[in-house]
Amino acid sequence: MTLLSRQDIDFLLHDWLGVADLVDRDTADAILDLSEKAAARDFLPHYKLADREQPELVDGAVHILPAIGDALKSYADLGLFGAGFAEEVGGFGLPHVLCSASFAWFAAASIATSAYPMLTAANARLLTTFGTAAQVDAFARPQIAGRWFGTMCLSEPQAGSSLADVATQARAEGEDVLGPRYRLTGSKMWISGGDQDVSANIVHLVLAKIVGADSKLPEGTEGLSLFIVPKLLPDGGRNDIVVAGLNHKMGYRGTSNCLLSFGEMGGATGWLVGAPGQGLRQMFHMMNEARISVGLGAAALGYRAYLLSATYARERLQGRPAGQRGGAPVAIIEHPDVQRMLLSQKACAEGALALCLYCAKLVDEAGDADKAALLSLLTPIAKTWPSEYGLAANDIAIQIHGGYGYTQDFDVEQLYRDNRLNPIHEGTTGVQGTDLLGRKILGADNRGLDILRREIADAAAASGEFALFGEALAAAWQEVEAAIDAARAMAPGAWLHHATPFLWAFGHVVLAWQWLSQAQAAARHGDERFAFGKAQACRHFFTSELPKVAPWLAPMRRGDASAPARTDYF
Amino acid sequence: MTLLSRQDIDFLLHDWLGVADLVDRDTADAILDLSEKAAARDFLPHYKLADREQPELVDGAVHILPAIGDALKSYADLGLFGAGFAEEVGGFGLPHVLCSASFAWFAAASIATSAYPMLTAANARLLTTFGTAAQVDAFARPQIAGRWFGTMCLSEPQAGSSLADVATQARAEGEDVLGPRYRLTGSKMWISGGDQDVSANIVHLVLAKIVGADSKLPEGTEGLSLFIVPKLLPDGGRNDIVVAGLNHKMGYRGTSNCLLSFGEMGGATGWLVGAPGQGLRQMFHMMNEARISVGLGAAALGYRAYLLSATYARERLQGRPAGQRGGAPVAIIEHPDVQRMLLSQKACAEGALALCLYCAKLVDEAGDADKAALLSLLTPIAKTWPSEYGLAANDIAIQIHGGYGYTQDFDVEQLYRDNRLNPIHEGTTGVQGTDLLGRKILGADNRGLDILRREIADAAAASGEFALFGEALAAAWQEVEAAIDAARAMAPGAWLHHATPFLWAFGHVVLAWQWLSQAQAAARHGDERFAFGKAQACRHFFTSELPKVAPWLAPMRRGDASAPARTDYF
Repeated sequence: MTLLSRQDIDFLLHDWLGVADLVDRDTADAILDLSEKAAARDFLPHYKLADREQPELVDGAVHILPAIGDALKSYADLGLFGAGFAEEVGGFGLPHVLCSASFAWFAAASIATSAYPMLTAANARLLTTFGTAAQVDAFARPQIAGRWFGTMCLSEPQAGSSLADVATQARAEGEDVLGPRYRLTGSKMWISGGDQDVSANIVHLVLAKIVGADSKLPEGTEGLSLFIVPKLLPDGGRNDIVVAGLNHKMGYRGTSNCLLSFGEMGGATGWLVGAPGQGLRQMFHMMNEARISVGLGAAALGYRAYLLSATYARERLQGRPAGQRGGAPVAIIEHPDVQRMLLSQKACAEGALALCLYCAKLVDEAGDADKAALLSLLTPIAKTWPSEYGLAANDIAIQIHGGYGYTQDFDVEQLYRDNRLNPIHEGTTGVQGTDLLGRKILGADNRGLDILRREIADAAAASGEFALFGEALAAAWQEVEAAIDAARAMAPGAWLHHATPFLWAFGHVVLAWQWLSQAQAAARHGDERFAFGKAQACRHFFTSELPKVAPWLAPMRRGDASAPARTDYF
Repeated sequence: MTLLSRQDIDFLLHDWLGVADLVDRDTADAILDLSEKAAARDFLPHYKLADREQPELVDGAVHILPAIGDALKSYADLGLFGAGFAEEVGGFGLPHVLCSASFAWFAAASIATSAYPMLTAANARLLTTFGTAAQVDAFARPQIAGRWFGTMCLSEPQAGSSLADVATQARAEGEDVLGPRYRLTGSKMWISGGDQDVSANIVHLVLAKIVGADSKLPEGTEGLSLFIVPKLLPDGGRNDIVVAGLNHKMGYRGTSNCLLSFGEMGGATGWLVGAPGQGLRQMFHMMNEARISVGLGAAALGYRAYLLSATYARERLQGRPAGQRGGAPVAIIEHPDVQRMLLSQKACAEGALALCLYCAKLVDEAGDADKAALLSLLTPIAKTWPSEYGLAANDIAIQIHGGYGYTQDFDVEQLYRDNRLNPIHEGTTGVQGTDLLGRKILGADNRGLDILRREIADAAAASGEFALFGEALAAAWQEVEAAIDAARAMAPGAWLHHATPFLWAFGHVVLAWQWLSQAQAAARHGDERFAFGKAQACRHFFTSELPKVAPWLAPMRRGDASAPARTDYF
């Protein structure tokens, strides 16, 4: 089974993104060869089993499918937990864009299994960025080696997306070599990998509020601090953390998802990361990477479903060409409607993967303030677009498989269920819309927007043989600009009505820009069949998807609220 | 738990559709009262259990959840299997539109349970239409009484949507009081209710080809005949039918779905319905009702998810209004993006239900050739639009519930999985597109299209306070007309590239027409809150949905193929 197209990934990395200044070709090839093989060998075989045999909570401990544990040991043995970390902390020092391309294979093979290293890397990245040397040695290095796993503990039962309402509290109790020490009490919900029986220890990064001298908690998100709260303490004893429950999900089932209770017996021990009140900023630093990873996983699931659909459509015989009676049935790929569906999947899946690798490269280049600004602007798109349109590719995969696609005999139904999580976690689509329009555009200095404007103008101007698409791209960008101008003129908060449709429109314009660029790079690439496919997907995107931008933005441009303030009619 | 809005159903039946000439208000009220109560009492309690405890095949017999059997006995005791049948054959003689409104409650409560009576009614309807008196007495009456259940056996493993390739064969073996008798051999796939342990017998209606004098099977769909093949023969003995397997589905799990093998021991006994070669015509007669029923079930699932979302959004406290810091969190229904999602759900769910009831009334009026022509034209829309947009309402329901919506603790994830079947069975969306554009428009006498054109022109002209929407409706209809003209000018078969996007566009124009009409009827209705809601949903549809029509039709109007004939690039 082909999980992703290696030719496409090579094209994206080398021909489209030009990663030569970040990594040499031999290293990239070696990592991708290894990833493709290991994903097929270690992750794919338990894909369906991990869906059937869900994590179980027995006597306070979560047991996950042993095959997942074996796969993760192998992943650790290959050194892939630390692939993107500096050699000084035990990593390989590979660029993030290559690590992302590597990771996509594992996500495609078993997204639930891949969640453990994804969260572990995000956790360790935060510690290497904001932690002390002692904290890095004690808590990040074992994760970079893949011996310990990590989690992010943000949400609480009463506060999902609303982090200002976090009620977990931390009481200062001194200081040691690991930093200022606190006692934490509170409940954390939706903790992926919150417990499991694979890694030797689990490092929780917990968002909490420090109890003030007046015994009160600080208000708002400025009061949030971040704590390292390990399952097992440095002395080997159990920390005061209880798994209060497991969530049973529609998909993504191999990843345990826990309700954790901290401090039922007096307080879980945690060490502060950085300074008090820096928790949200630290989390957001990590969030760019985590959100791109979610998008990348969503893209990988859609991509695998696209390739499965193409294979099925070539093999499944049914019906005849229009106007032909009798004779043998043809493969369904001969039917125009199946071709339309495959082309739509290709535009979704390859477009989503390209977007995520583009943003991953920006992570590598984020030392340049322009690149960092562009990354910040594009992150909500990298999170959302693949989550929505990778899922669309999964939906079409079921349709191409017909009744079979709705059964558990084929993989596409599980891929669809798995991918349905992605528009929810790490910030729902609605949260991303607010982030994009409210924080990144209306509330920012516009550096990122200026850069994107220039990139799109340059692409439109240099569209060459694709000049019609260049014109359409420039026109769509003008729609976006006009919508932003309209939002700036609105009463405070009125933009909230439009944030999600704006996100859809903005995402489509970004994708159109990248599809144009992909088609141009492919035309120079030399493989006629490959270039033809990229040009067709580009054409499909410009003719069938980009025209949605104007209607999505129309209410915002007119200043119509999406719904009246009244709610009694629902 | 409110499954559907009784106020909305009353409005649709009495104020919008004016069913007074078909049924008196007291009867309608009594049936709806009873349906609402019985659905909540008998169907809803086992909704999730039927998902967890799937049908099992043990020693050749399928066992389904006992609670489903109990519910169906209760449904039979209420006489609802026969609600829509004439009193002469044991029914209540109620109009189809009222039966549909009744059925919607049961579909909303447990779609998988409701599939048994839906299929049984369709089977019995076919028999009362095309069968002999003896066949009706022997096979339809027990189904109308709810003692026996029925199935439709069309698909085969090698021939899903392609009925010309049906390979099940029938050999003549004489005649008796039940009609010309045949021996059938072959395999039938995707047979919902193909076996179960609830009804005393199962009546299979089997599409097969009669072996000719030359021992050959006739080619094409003209060679298809329809046979009554009961599980138990009139003498009480087992017919030669084996359950060769059960399909395990993503949702809709309470409905057993079987691979049936006919004639492994020499031939299953079946009686011909009507004349040889009439099978497809007979099936298609039944298909209008069956396809509207699928749409109705999809609408009901979306509707229930919408109401669950509205309730959740009123109860769930999270976040604060824009610009407000501190203070208590508000219900999420206060957030503009949640209001946008609820309004979108309302437009989908209420629009879908209205469409299905409108078409159900056309079934009642189909003695009028104009009404029959309109029904024929609208049937692919009634099947598809609710299947796609009811599912969209289910998708949004998960989003409104956030992480909780992805868990099995709430109903919305199952409603989503259940509804994902509806764009597939009884003809996929692609098949419906071909039916609409190829058969109902390009291949028909245009009577239905002429009527719809007139209806839409009248509605646009009389749009009164909604004049802007009337203009938009007329303009969208012109887009449709122009696309049809373009299709007529295409090379033979080229329209196949456009059939599905045309179906989307046509469906949206039909819905816009009906939303305008609903808003107008509601404005006259007297309940200000209710009328406000309908007007808002209408406005949402016209501003956020109808503008998609032009881009969907643009490639068809230009005559661009959706994808090139080449397939090597997938």
